[in-house]
Amino acid sequence: MSDKSSLKVVSMGINTHQEPVVYMHKESHICVAEGFSANARLLVRTATTELLATLNVVENHFLGKNQIGLSRIAMQRLHVVEGESVLVEHAPVVDSLRFLRKKIYGHALDQADLNAIMHDISDHRYRDIEIASFLSVCAGSRMNIDEIIGLTRAMVNCGKRLQWSDHEFIYDKHCIGGLPGNRTTPLVVAICSAAGLLIPKTSSRAITSPAGTADTMSTLFKVEFSLPEMQKVVRKAGACMVWGGAVSLSPADDLMVRIERELDIDGEGQLISSVLSKKIAAGSTHVIIDIPVGDTAKVRGPAEADYLAGLFTRVGAACGIHVRCIITDGSKPIGAGIGPVQEAIDLLAVLQCKPEAPRDLRVRGVELAANLFDMADGNGIDAARKKAESLLDSGKAWEQFLLIAEAQGGLKTLPVAQYTAEIKAESAGRIAAVDNRRLARLAKLAGAPMDVSAGLRLHANAGSLVRRHDPLFTLYSESPGERDYALAYYQGNLDMFRIVDDGAP
Amino acid sequence: MSDKSSLKVVSMGINTHQEPVVYMHKESHICVAEGFSANARLLVRTATTELLATLNVVENHFLGKNQIGLSRIAMQRLHVVEGESVLVEHAPVVDSLRFLRKKIYGHALDQADLNAIMHDISDHRYRDIEIASFLSVCAGSRMNIDEIIGLTRAMVNCGKRLQWSDHEFIYDKHCIGGLPGNRTTPLVVAICSAAGLLIPKTSSRAITSPAGTADTMSTLFKVEFSLPEMQKVVRKAGACMVWGGAVSLSPADDLMVRIERELDIDGEGQLISSVLSKKIAAGSTHVIIDIPVGDTAKVRGPAEADYLAGLFTRVGAACGIHVRCIITDGSKPIGAGIGPVQEAIDLLAVLQCKPEAPRDLRVRGVELAANLFDMADGNGIDAARKKAESLLDSGKAWEQFLLIAEAQGGLKTLPVAQYTAEIKAESAGRIAAVDNRRLARLAKLAGAPMDVSAGLRLHANAGSLVRRHDPLFTLYSESPGERDYALAYYQGNLDMFRIVDDGAP
Repeated sequence: MSDKSSLKVVSMGINTHQEPVVYMHKESHICVAEGFSANARLLVRTATTELLATLNVVENHFLGKNQIGLSRIAMQRLHVVEGESVLVEHAPVVDSLRFLRKKIYGHALDQADLNAIMHDISDHRYRDIEIASFLSVCAGSRMNIDEIIGLTRAMVNCGKRLQWSDHEFIYDKHCIGGLPGNRTTPLVVAICSAAGLLIPKTSSRAITSPAGTADTMSTLFKVEFSLPEMQKVVRKAGACMVWGGAVSLSPADDLMVRIERELDIDGEGQLISSVLSKKIAAGSTHVIIDIPVGDTAKVRGPAEADYLAGLFTRVGAACGIHVRCIITDGSKPIGAGIGPVQEAIDLLAVLQCKPEAPRDLRVRGVELAANLFDMADGNGIDAARKKAESLLDSGKAWEQFLLIAEAQGGLKTLPVAQYTAEIKAESAGRIAAVDNRRLARLAKLAGAPMDVSAGLRLHANAGSLVRRHDPLFTLYSESPGERDYALAYYQGNLDMFRIVDDGAP
Repeated sequence: MSDKSSLKVVSMGINTHQEPVVYMHKESHICVAEGFSANARLLVRTATTELLATLNVVENHFLGKNQIGLSRIAMQRLHVVEGESVLVEHAPVVDSLRFLRKKIYGHALDQADLNAIMHDISDHRYRDIEIASFLSVCAGSRMNIDEIIGLTRAMVNCGKRLQWSDHEFIYDKHCIGGLPGNRTTPLVVAICSAAGLLIPKTSSRAITSPAGTADTMSTLFKVEFSLPEMQKVVRKAGACMVWGGAVSLSPADDLMVRIERELDIDGEGQLISSVLSKKIAAGSTHVIIDIPVGDTAKVRGPAEADYLAGLFTRVGAACGIHVRCIITDGSKPIGAGIGPVQEAIDLLAVLQCKPEAPRDLRVRGVELAANLFDMADGNGIDAARKKAESLLDSGKAWEQFLLIAEAQGGLKTLPVAQYTAEIKAESAGRIAAVDNRRLARLAKLAGAPMDVSAGLRLHANAGSLVRRHDPLFTLYSESPGERDYALAYYQGNLDMFRIVDDGAP
């Protein structure tokens, strides 16, 4: 349809993250003949594959007029090597962008619209600004229930879907997050799969928090597996704990998550469809959702929690799965560690029934496991709770955890952060409140979750009594720059620990 | 606050458009020490200036470990030369992003929020995905009247504001667009300033159309002037027609327009504040707004037009200026030319009273000029219409146009497109309708407005009778690739000219 011309590939070695960029000389014959200019969208083709990319026009000596530079992700997606020939032409119109505009202009999207958008996103046809636009106009209660159901189905449709032929029921759990240190997933998986429930658990990396479950688990064993490898782990151990991004159970969601993280938004429709699409694609039939509620948690009040729980249950039912939501206390951090490695330390202590194991983390893990047992056998929550405690205390859960670790390549030694700083209380009194959000931000500024050993270890929490100069927390980071950056933020936000002198001793 | 280290600047010669990008080697000591990774936001500083930029980590031989590559816009904004030393650290938190998130989550923004956002955008602190997010959540009736007023004021506040000491009243006109070929601004400016009205006209380049007034005028004379130069032109000729982007009367708006163009959205609140902020900053007191209405125009029905007119008038009044909206027929293209050069040809024909001058363009120019006269002297629209016609027929408007052209550097010769294609009617009959939107898209695919000579010349319009193989239009482009791309689009959209055989001869 348009003049095509051949260019030789040069690997630029530039990491442009997930948006492929190609570089062409201003005076290259194709730029001139096709009228390409800065930021144009191009279609780059080989005999077997093609790629939509953004053009950066260059005026330097790096590239000749018959060459095309490719960023790292462009090289990967196009499966080319340096020196190979590619054809370049104007990118075709991405048709589903008209549905994006439809949503921008305030109209609801139907199943076909959402299928088209998710299909194009998972095929890498959207630019970062277009994904940012879609996420923004879908955030903040801007999707109705039918759109959330439609989005969930559309996300499932554009990826693979697992079948577990020997099992009628498949179990899963998820916490919507917002509560630093609340790493109950591995406890629930270990306890429940020790009793024979099949749990093919995929977890995400952090979106806006200092650690996602996949970030924490990656410090203990390998979490990146292909889909067939993951199925092999589950057949061996009755459960797995792998990173969802690598198994592509919801590929469109994986691409949207990075932009959500960069914009620091996490919309409700997006949240529900992201969570449930992965459960449905994994073949789950029964799912527990933990919704922590607190002033500085993701969900701030009981009404909001009930509303969200209602949406989760309805969307789940519309998509053919059983969802039970558990609304929990989200007023303060759970456990003592925040950040991947620090949370892994707490987790091992609970599984090994060590004396220093954070009690709050154990109680929450037991409660969620009990709910999953109750959904499975219907014998009531009291019996289920006893069953969960006994599996933990007898060491059966720890044994099962080691079995999973073994199936995933064996337990690793936790790395230790290079830089630490101990922060002390400025005054004496009772800690009346801890700000989850600012604490999470502090851990992120220290380098979590990218640097797995970065984060915090709390020596006091809401309710604790402290004397002046008692240690409040230790900060861990892998570079002096990040340590200093985090400390400067803390100095400007001392009230993230609200210490009141109310006459307590 | 964090470790600062010095790096030597390398000019990468890469055009990353308006988002500054810096390139650093993966193993550079700063990347390692500060924990910088792909797409991190950095603050780059010299002794006198600083810049927020996005990091692209490189793993190649272009850069040494003590070097930092800068994209073209990064070089420009930081005012550095190759080899100069700069300091790099983590970018500070951009505080107004919390107001962006407030809007994403559905809360209205107040004046202080909007001031902060516009201030940070005009200071280049927002990334493209953040601007895309802001525009998307403000589009489609998502701003209330107070927010539109607030946004207008915020846009004025972050730029310069002109004073015209000798004149009490300053005039201006604007068309909200959506109608190909509707280039009345230069007619109104020439006619009204010939009668002594002061019109410091700034125009925009196209947002989603194949030509903005500034694109068209740039083919006739220079339109890029600094603010003092623009004021000199107005003092000399009583009017000007310059590109608004170069005089920075609403710098935040100029930065948002590119993203609006790339997303192909043009929200109502954004539209009103973009238009009025520039008029207010230019010192205008009386403004005419042309709102074309038609099935395929930007505004599709009279109710929508009245609503928009009401908003324009109220926002204008709240900001202390008089706004009169004129709702006009937007059912078909105006004139025969579409694209910068083709529209300039029509314009000159009208000013020179040539027999081939498109009558519809003349009539609309006269009507708008008459309304401005009526606002100015209150003598009624009939007298005003006669005055406008007489200024055009006597050659006084053309003389005044030449005076302005002279003050802006002299009239240029119009360039001629290298590639043309004549498109003929597929069947005989009456043209019942022409689709403005698809016609505009066709002209854009041919290369307009970036290639000024690209576009279309209509040989028939809605209402015309055509025989089979009569010419419908000529397509102009500056590259064979774009010509073929546009023709392929036309072949897939033959019904953009709806020809009906209703028995007419």
